[in-house]
Amino acid sequence: MSGMKQQVLEKINPDLSAIEMALVENLDPHLDLVKQTAGHLIFSGGKRLRPLLIVLCARICGHESPFVTKFATTFEFLHTATLMHDDVIDGANMRRGKQAAHHLYGAAVTVLVGDFLLARAICIAAETENPRIIRVVASLTEQMSEGEIYQLIKKGQTDLTEAEYMDIIRRKTGVLIESACKSGAILAGATQKQENALTAYGKHLGLVFQIADDILDYTADAGELGKNVGADLREGKLTLPVIYALSRAGETDHGRMKAIISNPEFTQSDFAELLGLLEKYQGVADARQKALDHVHKAKVHLEGFAPSATREILEMMADYALKRSS
Amino acid sequence: MSGMKQQVLEKINPDLSAIEMALVENLDPHLDLVKQTAGHLIFSGGKRLRPLLIVLCARICGHESPFVTKFATTFEFLHTATLMHDDVIDGANMRRGKQAAHHLYGAAVTVLVGDFLLARAICIAAETENPRIIRVVASLTEQMSEGEIYQLIKKGQTDLTEAEYMDIIRRKTGVLIESACKSGAILAGATQKQENALTAYGKHLGLVFQIADDILDYTADAGELGKNVGADLREGKLTLPVIYALSRAGETDHGRMKAIISNPEFTQSDFAELLGLLEKYQGVADARQKALDHVHKAKVHLEGFAPSATREILEMMADYALKRSS
Repeated sequence: MSGMKQQVLEKINPDLSAIEMALVENLDPHLDLVKQTAGHLIFSGGKRLRPLLIVLCARICGHESPFVTKFATTFEFLHTATLMHDDVIDGANMRRGKQAAHHLYGAAVTVLVGDFLLARAICIAAETENPRIIRVVASLTEQMSEGEIYQLIKKGQTDLTEAEYMDIIRRKTGVLIESACKSGAILAGATQKQENALTAYGKHLGLVFQIADDILDYTADAGELGKNVGADLREGKLTLPVIYALSRAGETDHGRMKAIISNPEFTQSDFAELLGLLEKYQGVADARQKALDHVHKAKVHLEGFAPSATREILEMMADYALKRSS
Repeated sequence: MSGMKQQVLEKINPDLSAIEMALVENLDPHLDLVKQTAGHLIFSGGKRLRPLLIVLCARICGHESPFVTKFATTFEFLHTATLMHDDVIDGANMRRGKQAAHHLYGAAVTVLVGDFLLARAICIAAETENPRIIRVVASLTEQMSEGEIYQLIKKGQTDLTEAEYMDIIRRKTGVLIESACKSGAILAGATQKQENALTAYGKHLGLVFQIADDILDYTADAGELGKNVGADLREGKLTLPVIYALSRAGETDHGRMKAIISNPEFTQSDFAELLGLLEKYQGVADARQKALDHVHKAKVHLEGFAPSATREILEMMADYALKRSS
């Protein structure tokens, strides 16, 4: 895997550098505090997945321009805005291995800087003067906020279904990645067929990323994760590994799992017990299989494009999305 | 004054009804909780000043359409979003005579519903497919959030200057009202001269509204205000009446005022003493004079339009903006 990661990274390094520069140039607030607070998270080693997808999706449709890179920052700013608001709302301690912004700058500043980033993103999208792109960005912002609220409503609900889970992750994560791919195509003046294919690719890729993230919450160590393991559960968020395990457990194990899940103060030994039960009922393995299905579906939608380095990178990104959770 | 208010209200009643209907129709969230939380504030007797300005500014440029009313909701949703985030940040108890939303629905939901309203507003603005309007809306959102952050930075600073105060209120309140007038003109396909005139009218009107609001915090009773008197001071926000009084007070009174202002736990009798000092140094009277200057400036910019009922209402709105603080 690390060989593949290396290969992908080398090919996309120039794009990543251009994106970093564009992020610095386009953050551009009047107030130093905004720069510090937003910068704390923006420049903390994010994967730049969303802007990169825009650049690659535009390129696979034959379009390349400095404006694409500038526009791509829209999606990183939107992504960061939601992370900042999420961390305030969840009372999260860490993000990407650093203290969450609200611990350093306070909840009030963090909420307002999140608002600023949201507005900044819309401003950059508006520069396209392309009504379709602006609609895509505006609508995804709306869907994301409803997705977050839906997740909040479902917090602590131990009988969350797979369908409800998929609905939440589609809205809170999937839509942003799907829309990034779609916007890249629109910006490139792609054919409708190309645009549809890249939108579908993005839809499946988004699901893979979120399912993999949710698996990592049970399999990674804290250093690797950049935040505490088991954080989702502690926040009352049920994710796919647990949903699968619960659906298959016998009465006793089911009862025991529910007891652990329902107690936000669960101990290290409770958590270890839960991990054992996830193992017993193949919760993680099946979640990974589900993600793998979406990796395949994502790749199928790239088949209409002629083989190229760009197509190869997009395919690798789908693999990478899942592999990082191994 | 109440005669004038009556007169204005009768003329604009049909517009206000159309705006109310458009707000109900266009809020349109998928989740019931969003409807409840957003509706709690949106349908709590707001003045609908901002949407009304759009309708009137479009009309004075000869344009009238149901879409203008729909577009006008953008500004009420943006306004409500900022109020919701403000109330969470300030820990405000009341708004428009009701419990602030975060007391009923929690801070997390209130922040996210604020995000939803912001996104909803941008979606409606995007429907214009007019790049200039979308830029105006996107840019005002960015300016407002920086204005809020600037105010937060300046909180508790007892030596705030008049220039700093004007900068804060221009960004946090003025820009929204100014942009409402400008958008109405653009939507109407106004001439550049008309657009500039209405933008300037809106700029001065916005300042009048905020200065009047800030005066009300010292002169109204709690019932009339819909929130606690002296709330600004308790939150560490210095406004024009105090800035003026401080600038003129002798050493002893200056020291006494600073002592009261610096203590967020000031008593009723401290507050009464402060009101006495504001009176002594004409803080309120001079703030009102400043607002009156902006009323005149606002009206001057309407002089290029032929006399009409609409022009008269816009003039009356400038008077009303200040008179309500008497």
